[in-house]
Amino acid sequence: MSKEKKSALQENKGVSSSEVTNESSINSIKSKRKKSLDAATVITSILDKNITALSRAITLVESKNPKHLQQAHTILKGCLPYANRSVRIGITGVPGVGKSTFIEALGKYLLSKGKRVAVLAIDPSSSVTKGSILGDKTRMEDLVKDKNAFIRPSASGDSLGGVARKTRETIILCEAAGFDIIIIETVGVGQNETIVHSMVDFFLLLKLAGAGDELQGIKRGIIEMADVIAINKADGDNLKRAKLAQIEFSRALDLYPQRSSNWQPKVSICSAIKNEGIDAIWKLIQDYIKITSQNNYFDLKRNEQNKYWLIQTIEAQLKTDFFNTPKIKKELKKQLKRIETNQTTPFAAADYLLKLQ
Amino acid sequence: MSKEKKSALQENKGVSSSEVTNESSINSIKSKRKKSLDAATVITSILDKNITALSRAITLVESKNPKHLQQAHTILKGCLPYANRSVRIGITGVPGVGKSTFIEALGKYLLSKGKRVAVLAIDPSSSVTKGSILGDKTRMEDLVKDKNAFIRPSASGDSLGGVARKTRETIILCEAAGFDIIIIETVGVGQNETIVHSMVDFFLLLKLAGAGDELQGIKRGIIEMADVIAINKADGDNLKRAKLAQIEFSRALDLYPQRSSNWQPKVSICSAIKNEGIDAIWKLIQDYIKITSQNNYFDLKRNEQNKYWLIQTIEAQLKTDFFNTPKIKKELKKQLKRIETNQTTPFAAADYLLKLQ
Repeated sequence: MSKEKKSALQENKGVSSSEVTNESSINSIKSKRKKSLDAATVITSILDKNITALSRAITLVESKNPKHLQQAHTILKGCLPYANRSVRIGITGVPGVGKSTFIEALGKYLLSKGKRVAVLAIDPSSSVTKGSILGDKTRMEDLVKDKNAFIRPSASGDSLGGVARKTRETIILCEAAGFDIIIIETVGVGQNETIVHSMVDFFLLLKLAGAGDELQGIKRGIIEMADVIAINKADGDNLKRAKLAQIEFSRALDLYPQRSSNWQPKVSICSAIKNEGIDAIWKLIQDYIKITSQNNYFDLKRNEQNKYWLIQTIEAQLKTDFFNTPKIKKELKKQLKRIETNQTTPFAAADYLLKLQ
Repeated sequence: MSKEKKSALQENKGVSSSEVTNESSINSIKSKRKKSLDAATVITSILDKNITALSRAITLVESKNPKHLQQAHTILKGCLPYANRSVRIGITGVPGVGKSTFIEALGKYLLSKGKRVAVLAIDPSSSVTKGSILGDKTRMEDLVKDKNAFIRPSASGDSLGGVARKTRETIILCEAAGFDIIIIETVGVGQNETIVHSMVDFFLLLKLAGAGDELQGIKRGIIEMADVIAINKADGDNLKRAKLAQIEFSRALDLYPQRSSNWQPKVSICSAIKNEGIDAIWKLIQDYIKITSQNNYFDLKRNEQNKYWLIQTIEAQLKTDFFNTPKIKKELKKQLKRIETNQTTPFAAADYLLKLQ
């Protein structure tokens, strides 16, 4: 890729034009679909904002076939220099909070501002339920139809770590394909939020004004992660309650110590279905990016996230390699039996097993 | 060790007599102190409730000298068949809550009931502060003087995992030395509580009746671990507030789902300094043991804890071995640099480093 090309791409950043689709590269991809893909062609096509090529590359990333993964690796490497230029926004909330409606409203607002928006999801349960998030694309009808929007359901996988890796790699591909805003959706279940938080720049928690104690039942960890809490469905009879919840959450947030980002988390109210308050939330996200870019926290956080994923991936693989060795599997059972019958301690058993490696 | 000896030890369980000190074994240990210890002699002496031998064995467990650790290993192996017979109680609370006074009051109460009580501590910070918990033994004067009580400050160590391992091994030694009740004290800081929780049968959270919102600022995770919450300093002007806090905490506990132990956690009030409410708390501990022994949860939990420590130890060692390899150390730095400059992804870097093993 020439320097001119790169600078042209940089200029494109933040601009809505995806007209530059390279017809010849699409045809080239289509004709090669059945055969093995030429990585260089795919890379060029992705950089040309070709959605077919992008989808195809994501499919390779999500594949379990080692040959596909090798191709994915090559494509990712080629895309890397053009990645890292979007704003990555994590959005979470319990089922029923209106995540899809909110994302559609935010997405449409951003499209109207000339942005290109990709929506991904992390939902490891989707392999069981056949896609509970974003699986039903009709939920975001208007976004799906827009050529400057790209929606992809959650990768499936046996482990949250595996799903996370695939999503992280998909972010790189989407960024190389010129998407300015990457939204990662997740449901407020288990470790999903922590995983999403570790791959986004900005984390938005969607809440409803509930009956009674607003703070009851909310996981403290999630409040600590949220950069903005948006109370959705703040319309009609619900508006007053939403405003009260806003005050209560703001007070709760004030109790937390100052963050290293220097950003004081905010509480906002909105009605995604009525398109109200969406602009104010985008304004907050922009404020956040401005502050954290100026104090260098934005880049620092991305760097820390990269280190985190490097270490996490290594640690997970070390464990998998060890515990999946047939010899270890067999001896582990024996040692557990010995521990149960007071013949050894967990520590002596660990030492014994480690020496078998 | 003969079967008669073992059955004699079992009969001794719960009885206050430690008179059976074997004089000859003490002398034998003293004369050998400068030389390498004879493990068999140490084991016999520990089983004879010889405190000098017990202390010496704990020192070996805490040593960094590989030769000492080998001896410790042999002694632990010999003690194992006589361990596992105590009740292990974890006690936590923020500084100022009156942990030492409470443990002294509970310890003295248990001694009066004919129990033998060992008090250990987990406080990894003690290597820096020269022992903030139990370091100042004068804080538990009455306990220190009693021959049926044994107090040992926190092992020091570079890692919480290392300190935890030493404490777990010390529990085995104390149990072999005929202690019926092992109290593990910790401060409410960081991961300490989780570590202590993973090695005790019963977990007690000490609290004060504070001003204002009782539940504000308490870590939810700790409430979930507590089998009993005891509100200390419930005396004088404070009594009324303590009773209110008791009601509030009880309500909060009721919101949690039923535990697999079938034990419904209780909230108690006490004044350790006035020796009030200590008997009621001991009664609750006994109730807990009765219920969980009958439904087999007690043994199940110990088994799960053993498995947890086995897996934890292996995982920690795998990481240490990997990241301390000089080649990996060097290449890790390079890969981090490459990630920072967008030349590789965290995942590709991880794959690369893992292949270097």
